[in-house]
Amino acid sequence: MKSYNEMSKEELMKEKESLTAAYRDYQKMDLSLNMARGKPAPAQLELSYGLLGAVDPSDMIEDGIDTRNYGGLDGIPAAKALLASMVDCDPEQVIVFGNSSLNIMYDQVSRGMTTGYLGETPWCKLPEVKWICPVPGYDRHFGVTEHFGIKMINVPMTEDGPDMDMVEELVKDPAVKGMWCVPKYSNPQGYVYSDEIVKRIAALEPAAPDFRVFWDNAYCVHHIYDEPEKQKKILNILDETEKCGHKDMIFEFMSTSKISFPGAGIAGMAASDNNLKDVLKTLSAQTIGYDKINMLRHVNFFRDGKGIREHMKKHAAIVRPKFELTVKKFKEELEGLGVGSWTEPSGGYFVTFTTNPGCAKRTIELAKEAGVTMTGAGAPFPYHKDPDDSTIRVAPTYPTLDELSQALDVFVLCVKLAAVEKKLG
Amino acid sequence: MKSYNEMSKEELMKEKESLTAAYRDYQKMDLSLNMARGKPAPAQLELSYGLLGAVDPSDMIEDGIDTRNYGGLDGIPAAKALLASMVDCDPEQVIVFGNSSLNIMYDQVSRGMTTGYLGETPWCKLPEVKWICPVPGYDRHFGVTEHFGIKMINVPMTEDGPDMDMVEELVKDPAVKGMWCVPKYSNPQGYVYSDEIVKRIAALEPAAPDFRVFWDNAYCVHHIYDEPEKQKKILNILDETEKCGHKDMIFEFMSTSKISFPGAGIAGMAASDNNLKDVLKTLSAQTIGYDKINMLRHVNFFRDGKGIREHMKKHAAIVRPKFELTVKKFKEELEGLGVGSWTEPSGGYFVTFTTNPGCAKRTIELAKEAGVTMTGAGAPFPYHKDPDDSTIRVAPTYPTLDELSQALDVFVLCVKLAAVEKKLG
Repeated sequence: MKSYNEMSKEELMKEKESLTAAYRDYQKMDLSLNMARGKPAPAQLELSYGLLGAVDPSDMIEDGIDTRNYGGLDGIPAAKALLASMVDCDPEQVIVFGNSSLNIMYDQVSRGMTTGYLGETPWCKLPEVKWICPVPGYDRHFGVTEHFGIKMINVPMTEDGPDMDMVEELVKDPAVKGMWCVPKYSNPQGYVYSDEIVKRIAALEPAAPDFRVFWDNAYCVHHIYDEPEKQKKILNILDETEKCGHKDMIFEFMSTSKISFPGAGIAGMAASDNNLKDVLKTLSAQTIGYDKINMLRHVNFFRDGKGIREHMKKHAAIVRPKFELTVKKFKEELEGLGVGSWTEPSGGYFVTFTTNPGCAKRTIELAKEAGVTMTGAGAPFPYHKDPDDSTIRVAPTYPTLDELSQALDVFVLCVKLAAVEKKLG
Repeated sequence: MKSYNEMSKEELMKEKESLTAAYRDYQKMDLSLNMARGKPAPAQLELSYGLLGAVDPSDMIEDGIDTRNYGGLDGIPAAKALLASMVDCDPEQVIVFGNSSLNIMYDQVSRGMTTGYLGETPWCKLPEVKWICPVPGYDRHFGVTEHFGIKMINVPMTEDGPDMDMVEELVKDPAVKGMWCVPKYSNPQGYVYSDEIVKRIAALEPAAPDFRVFWDNAYCVHHIYDEPEKQKKILNILDETEKCGHKDMIFEFMSTSKISFPGAGIAGMAASDNNLKDVLKTLSAQTIGYDKINMLRHVNFFRDGKGIREHMKKHAAIVRPKFELTVKKFKEELEGLGVGSWTEPSGGYFVTFTTNPGCAKRTIELAKEAGVTMTGAGAPFPYHKDPDDSTIRVAPTYPTLDELSQALDVFVLCVKLAAVEKKLG
């Protein structure tokens, strides 16, 4: 099909007419489809039913810790080993917390605000705190920093990771205290940070001694393809920072939320000894300990890193056709039209669709009115402000293949319609 | 036996000699006994094994919420109802959080520090924040306020609750932002606030609009006796504050930690609509939700308030002999000696032993050196400072009856020895 860029006004008006007719047909169908949130589909949840009965009452003492009772502030060693296997770090570098890595990150920012890291001034005593936000990024990350009144600074993402020239410049400001990163299968693009980018991050020389990279390795084992050669590799950030003598600069987060049950998994943080000790001091005021029985449940069910990898293959078998269908629809329906571009992730939970500037909000609105809910416009940006109004996060995992197919048909139509509307002005 | 107060110096010296000989015999026994922490005994934990298999994979949608997936920030309605039944409030007044009520309290203080309640100034922006601490009290409560640098003010406890004349005076200071309360079976005395005290608390007119009573109803169903007439009643604080138009003044906390498994239970907070809305705003930045499968597990296992009451009778059958033995030993060995006094709780997890002034630390030290660990001296006071050095928290639940008996024999001996030493100067 001819690109919209090459169409005359008459052709565009004709195209609009035809698109509008098709759109009205969808509206009449009273659809209710959702590609908004990165939620596993029910079929994926069923993979973890074995977890529910994975604790044997007669075998609840693990590494000398009675998982039934109080104690064990930093988590049971076997659960540390399980989470460590996901990011290839030493189990002793890990604290196992509760069910939510987002909550750990929130707590870590909160500790920065009220306690301060390693003896530094609590940020609530400072006139201003700033944060580096690679964009587009994860809306809930930005929600945490916004909640604490931290000033967020956009840094563009490339296929290889954040624009490091900008990052290196920004960290010269001592008010810059942190940076969000989803290094592997980034949310929402599915990009993987290149070795060069990881090395440049590890080598950062921030002016603030309490600058921390929040390395949210949420999708570290969430490959879409089983073949090892198709699974993207990433350098180990803790190793790289250690080489640079910057190990205290990293908080690395991991979680089983999208491995076992979202909301009923276990989550952890890996960090340097200094940081772990610092966290445990606060943690001993905050709680007596996290849910050790749920840790044991996960240890018994998954056993080890190999067990997790095998389990993730089953997830991949369910989500792979959905990602492939998404990209296929985009190619078939939109390629060459000049209406936008998209990512082709090999892992994670999202595809990013980039519309022509000024078209994202309208596309999402059109989809909504035809019964297809997308992530809100602007969500992947701090303060919900997409400067180009062009980024749409597509979450293909939750719907069934049939639902997804229909939702994508509506979506690509809305992309085209919004693009034509824009061109016609 | 003759009171130490009536003994001559010679008699006291002879007594000391005999006590010291007995003490040395214990030291030779190489004991390792613990009456330090309020932990359920293994026999109590076994009561909840049914919880481990209480979730049926085919029945995990509860009140329309898929407990397997994300969502449900405030908890599943059935779990709200379960926790509400424990403190006799409306389920809609409850948010169900994670596994630790201490963590909820910590988070609430943290919110006061960084966000502020209902639009009030965050406390971290104020020159000073003060807190009312009935003493002796729960060490971990004081640990939270100490962690945030809040100035703690001691208010003496009576058998009926805190000294309300002092409290009413203190809340006239707008820097006083909160008060810790364990209203029923108080930690560490086992006292229950009288109706008059509850009414006076509800009627408080604090200068600070963001003053909150942290009503930690940790032991609301933890009766030692089954007979209803022996179970202490307490007025409902939410009802009482509502009558006074002060409903926003209360955060009430409850937990199943000492009902099911410590660390693997569910915990909640009851509060006014205004407060709940205020909390949910922060909570939506903090987490996607708590462990709904564990909520479902508890709902399925306990069913309702009646189920919890029946379950607590089984706990009572295990802990009752331990409390009775403790008080019996104190009576048999110490009554009339002028060496101290003790509480006789009908619920909760602790007995308070009050030594003669200046003898608590020494008693605990002597016990330690004979292999019996008690809660650290000063622990039940802010900053670990017991002004009279006389309060010892006795936790009788964890040891077996035999271990407890031996530990108490050592303890009463140490009480006597410390008292004699003190008298001899």
